[in-house]
Order: sequence, then C-alpha cells, then structure tokens
Amino acid sequence: MSKSVVILSTGEELLTGETVDTNSAWLAASLWGLGAQVRSMLTAGDDMLGLVRAIRTACEHGSVVICTGGLGPTDDDRTAQAVAAWAGLGLSESTEAMTQIESRYRTLGREVSAANRKQAMLPDGAIVLENRWGTAPGFSVGHNGSTIFCLPGVPMEMRHMFKAHIAALLSTSESPTLVRMRTFGVAESRLQTMMNGLDLGGADLGFRAHIPEVQIKLRFPTGTSADAQRRVVGRVSDVLGESLYSVDGGDLAENVIEVLSQAGETLSLAESCTAGMTSAWLAEVPGASAVLMEGVIVYSNESKERSLGVGADVIADNGAVSKPVALALAEGIRSKAGTTWGIGITGIAGPGGGSEAKPVGTVHIAVAGPSGTRHQTVVIPGDRNQVRIRAAGTALALLLRCRN
Amino acid sequence: MSKSVVILSTGEELLTGETVDTNSAWLAASLWGLGAQVRSMLTAGDDMLGLVRAIRTACEHGSVVICTGGLGPTDDDRTAQAVAAWAGLGLSESTEAMTQIESRYRTLGREVSAANRKQAMLPDGAIVLENRWGTAPGFSVGHNGSTIFCLPGVPMEMRHMFKAHIAALLSTSESPTLVRMRTFGVAESRLQTMMNGLDLGGADLGFRAHIPEVQIKLRFPTGTSADAQRRVVGRVSDVLGESLYSVDGGDLAENVIEVLSQAGETLSLAESCTAGMTSAWLAEVPGASAVLMEGVIVYSNESKERSLGVGADVIADNGAVSKPVALALAEGIRSKAGTTWGIGITGIAGPGGGSEAKPVGTVHIAVAGPSGTRHQTVVIPGDRNQVRIRAAGTALALLLRCRN
Repeated sequence: MSKSVVILSTGEELLTGETVDTNSAWLAASLWGLGAQVRSMLTAGDDMLGLVRAIRTACEHGSVVICTGGLGPTDDDRTAQAVAAWAGLGLSESTEAMTQIESRYRTLGREVSAANRKQAMLPDGAIVLENRWGTAPGFSVGHNGSTIFCLPGVPMEMRHMFKAHIAALLSTSESPTLVRMRTFGVAESRLQTMMNGLDLGGADLGFRAHIPEVQIKLRFPTGTSADAQRRVVGRVSDVLGESLYSVDGGDLAENVIEVLSQAGETLSLAESCTAGMTSAWLAEVPGASAVLMEGVIVYSNESKERSLGVGADVIADNGAVSKPVALALAEGIRSKAGTTWGIGITGIAGPGGGSEAKPVGTVHIAVAGPSGTRHQTVVIPGDRNQVRIRAAGTALALLLRCRN
Repeated sequence: MSKSVVILSTGEELLTGETVDTNSAWLAASLWGLGAQVRSMLTAGDDMLGLVRAIRTACEHGSVVICTGGLGPTDDDRTAQAVAAWAGLGLSESTEAMTQIESRYRTLGREVSAANRKQAMLPDGAIVLENRWGTAPGFSVGHNGSTIFCLPGVPMEMRHMFKAHIAALLSTSESPTLVRMRTFGVAESRLQTMMNGLDLGGADLGFRAHIPEVQIKLRFPTGTSADAQRRVVGRVSDVLGESLYSVDGGDLAENVIEVLSQAGETLSLAESCTAGMTSAWLAEVPGASAVLMEGVIVYSNESKERSLGVGADVIADNGAVSKPVALALAEGIRSKAGTTWGIGITGIAGPGGGSEAKPVGTVHIAVAGPSGTRHQTVVIPGDRNQVRIRAAGTALALLLRCRN
C-alpha cells in the first residue's frame, strides 16, 4: 500500500511571504516518484500554538508527515518543542544528537556553543536522523499511528537528508518506475502538443519547467515490464528529437563534464553577458577540473580586445553582440587555452541595451572545436537572469550537439 | 483588530510537485503589508473530499480564507462545488456571473461554450467577484463566522482580483514596520548570542539564514516612532559591527556594484575554485557593466601561470591554494585589467583535494586596491556549492571592508 503523506513547512518567513516555499514542491515531486501519495500540504509559522495545531492537523490528514524548518539554534526554532507537546513527550538532550553535533564541530575546528546544544534537545525517544550536510540533526517521532519526520529547512540539507533517511522507508514494492527525460530549447506548451496522442503504455505524464530546461516525467504503473518501458521511452525520444539530451541522467553541465572527461577532451570559455555563469555551472560538477581549463569574462569591449584579440574593427562593424564577435571569442579562447573546445557567448541581458534590430535577450553563441566552429543566435524572453541562464544552457546544449 | 487569514491553494499539480506555489507567498506578502495576520497556509488537490476537508480546516484556523485555483472550465475544477458542500448550500447558475462571462466573451469575439457555463455555477447566495483579466469569475461565501474568498489560480488574474476585491476589506491602520539587517561572516547561532539581552524596544526579532548570509529582521509594533526605531537599529548595528553590511538594502553584489559605481571605481576578478561564480553574481545586478570590467577563471595551474603570470615556483613552493597565489591573482588581474580593485580567489571546494594541512573548504582570498592588498583565509563548512558561494561572499564582503 502506498503511504499517504502530508508535507508541513514551518517558518515565519513563509507566512510573511518573504520566502517562496520551494521545499514542499521538491518533496512532493520526490514523493510522487516513489509512488507515495501527498494528501495535502500545510505551512505554519514560529508560534507554538500554531505549530502544534499544524502538526495535529497534518497527522489527521495523513499517516506520514514530513516537516521542514525550525531546527536551528535560535529561540524562534521550535519544531522539537512542538512535536514533544503534540506527542505528550518530554524534551531532553539527546546524547546521540549531541555526539553528532560535537563531531561535526570538531571536524570544522569550531567550538560548540550553548545555542548549538539546544539543537540536541529532542523529544524523548525520538529517532535521530544524522545531518552530514549541516549542524542541525533531524529526528522522527511516532504517535497515535502517525509518524512525523523533521528535517532542516535549508534546502540542500533537507534534500540530502530526505534521500538518506526517508526515501527508502516510503518506497514500496509497488513503487512505480519513474523515467525522467530532460529537454532543452523547446517550450513546455509545445512539448505538450508534441506528446499529444502518443501511446504511453499507461504511464502518467508530467511536465516540469525547471529553468533553463523542461523535464518530462513518465511514471509507469507497477508491473510494467522493462521492455514495455523501453518501447515507450523510445517513442517519446523519437518525438523529442534533438531537444532531448538526457534520460535519467544529470543536467547539462553534468553531461558536458561526463562526456568530455570520458573522451579526454578539455574546454575553455569566453563569456560576456553570462559573465562566468556558464563556467561556474560547470564547476559545480565534482571532477570538473579535468575538463574546465580556463575562462575569461570579457564584460567590456576593451577586455574583449585585450584578452582575446577581438579586433576593434570587428566590434565597431558588427557590434559587440554579433556572430563575428561570438566566433572570435570561441576561437580566441580555444587557441589561447589550447583546449579541445572553446565556447564564446555575447548577448544583451537587459533590462537596458536593447534596440529594434537587437532586442533584449539577443544572444550569439559559438562553439569552436576540432572540425570548425558552429554558431547559434537566440532571442530569449524573460528577465536579466532568465536570459543569462538560458544563454548558458544554450551554449552547453550546442556543445553537446557538436559532439554528436 | 487585524484579521486572521488562512491561504488555501488548490491544484493537483501542487501536490505532485510539478508547480511551485508562488501565489501563496505573493498573497502572504500583500497581506503582511496590509497588517493582516496569516495564520497558516494549506494546499489541497482536486478531489472533493480533500478539498472540503481543507476548507473546513482553513476556516478553523482563521476567520478569513483566501482560496486560489479550481475555478476553470474542466471537470477537475471543483472549488465552487467544494465550498457549496462545506457551507451546505446548493449550486446553481449565477445570473450575474453568467452575464460577466458573456460580456467578456463578446469583447473577445468568442462563443461561450458549455464548459464556460460551468464557470457560472456558484454556491447559492455567493457574492460574485468580477474577473476583468480572465474568464473565471471569483466569489465569496460566508458561513459559520468565516468568509472564504475564491480566486483563480492564474497568478496574474489572482493578483489583480485580490487588489480589486479583497485588499481594501482587510486593510487596517495597524500595519507594522519591518527592518531587515543583512550580515555576513558570523554564524546564526553566534548572532543570536550577540543579540541576547539587547533592548529592542518591543520589536519582534527574527533570524534567517539565506546562504551565504544571515538576515536579522526587526518587526516593530504599530505606533513605534521613527526615532525609537532608529535607536534600536543603532544599538543592533553597534553589536553587529563589521558583520553588518546593509540595513533594508540589497545583497552583497548589489552593495558592491552600488558603492563602486557611485565612486566611479572598477573591478576585475581572478577566480579559481569559484570559477566565475563571483563575477556572475555581480553581473546579476543591472548596471554591473559600469563596474565589472574583466574576469579570468584560472582553474588549472597552467592557466594561472599563462593568464596572470603567477610564477610556477610560487605555486610549487606554496601550493595553488595559498596566500601568495591569492595575492598574485588579485594583483595580477588588477594590473592586467587596469581596474581600481582586483579580487583573487583560490581554494579547495571538494569533495576531493583536501589534506590535513589544507582541509576541504580552505579558501584564500585577496583584494588588491589603491593602498595595497588585503588577504583573508577561511575554512568553510558544507558541500562543494556552499564552499563556493560562501567564498564568493567572503570576497565581496572583504572588498566592502577595504573601502571603509
């Protein structure tokens, strides 16, 4: 039987609208993938009465409650207190939690403060959930047929801890199979039209716009054979064509690092409007140093000339945002750094700087490689940040296509 | 008296994690600004039982419920039905709603379909809320001392309708004042200790870790004079010292761009472990191009030597992650780019590459300027990304301190 789950987010910053709650959507998507059924979501602030009431309500709505936030060292972090009050338990220092906190602080070479000791104050009998990614241990408590899991609100810690401590408990032999297909460069509404009428062998279809990409999720019912799944994935891949870049794989940067490092190839970048964002994205991937050799951020025209020898006349004749400049950047950095591949990006991120001929969002991208240089122009809708992150994505997608 | 409000979002796409709920945060921020108190938030899917239960729970938590979603023309749009069931009312076609729908469709030159007629089916006695921005009328129903307002889920329509029909009803003369103080470099737990016993003039104190910084929020009760607020902010500033970098202002990057552009100063960066993240962060700020001139990403040792002339012997003697290399990077890029300031960052982001003498998280940062070069070493806890973003923050904070 799949479990019925309620997600409870806590934090005054959610009730004042200062923070958009992204944890709940992440948890919901992960739970969906495990076949667990999210019945409802709740958000409570920092006050004890509201917290206890929210926990009680959550436990009425589902047998498993996943609670995020309120495990920090300060006085307005009250989740452990509220859970203890709800379950009628005492609150005392957990030796196990304290040991974990001390060990983490020893590693960091820092002193455990009185405020940190508070983070070991847990409901009596709680199961401690180790936090190897931050200082606040999580915990779980069972009461009246419900189990509540409490995780920190910091998204990175919450995600790691959900995967480490909770995912396996909730997955059942009836868990459906989830296949995640990652696409780049085609809008969600058009992807939906492309998929219309396709035989999906009974799979549920989900779309998720995750800027700069769109993910397509296929959830196959329990018992669907691997062969049947493969056939469906094949049909979807045919329809998606070049926009599909990964099935159950990493993001664009992970793909680039994986593909290039396996081939022993290297990369350098010359970025203008993205100003290092593409390089920084690649460097998120552990092992990037085997591939990513060098980058230049040529934000001013002078730096384009001085760093990569882009001719002043080329810029004067075509403008800094132009195909010739993108080509010169890609080829210039490739030759300077002596890498297999060179990427050049120049564009208008906005809000200023646009014109009728070159509106805000115009980006020229070039990829120079062993058999020549390819170029792509895009006009990207959205604000400054969307333009930049989509430009970075377009560059990496173009590089992957150059290698096919 | 300020009203206690509950926000209820509906839609199966929220429970599957396909969509991040931004409506609730927008409503919460708007309500906070009106002085209304958001008690909790709930999210329900499309099934009738779950919807009715959520409405009942919401009305137990607050006297005003603002519900979004489920007013569309399709079968899984069930908000009107659920409100009718909760209040024990019949459901019938509202002449007023139908007139609004017909008039809107006439303007658009389109035919009213049977599916659109469904959108006029409202609980008996409901007050119709006109939607001049889309096709689905909203409505409100009072029952048992609670009032529920139902708005469409499309953010643009929801926002307009909230402003047009609800804001004025909830606004009071008691709106509080919020002061947000941004700090960098001191852990949340230590900040809490520093603030202990401070006279805050009755203000509520909140902490929020927003990597890489910690924000301190003071919420003053209605009627606190501007003078009294200034005195409290002054006392808190004294205690926070150098870690405070902004009161009600932008983030570190916005501060750097603002301060340097006002002074007519320029900046260049040489990044190793952060690999362009610092430059990209600065470039997020509109107008960054007046300040940010050039950057290099010197990921490999060869690139450190070739791009900035960091001597191979300096690297061999001290290691690439060392004070002399950070100084050489900062001074090298400053002199190459001819900027007022130069930043150099070199560190071990992990997960590999650490040693006992230089554990993962060790970062050397240098800022070169008109009166010399300052250096800072930090050992940053956390994963690869945390190390990188905190390193970027440390560099910008050091630059701001260099200018003081």
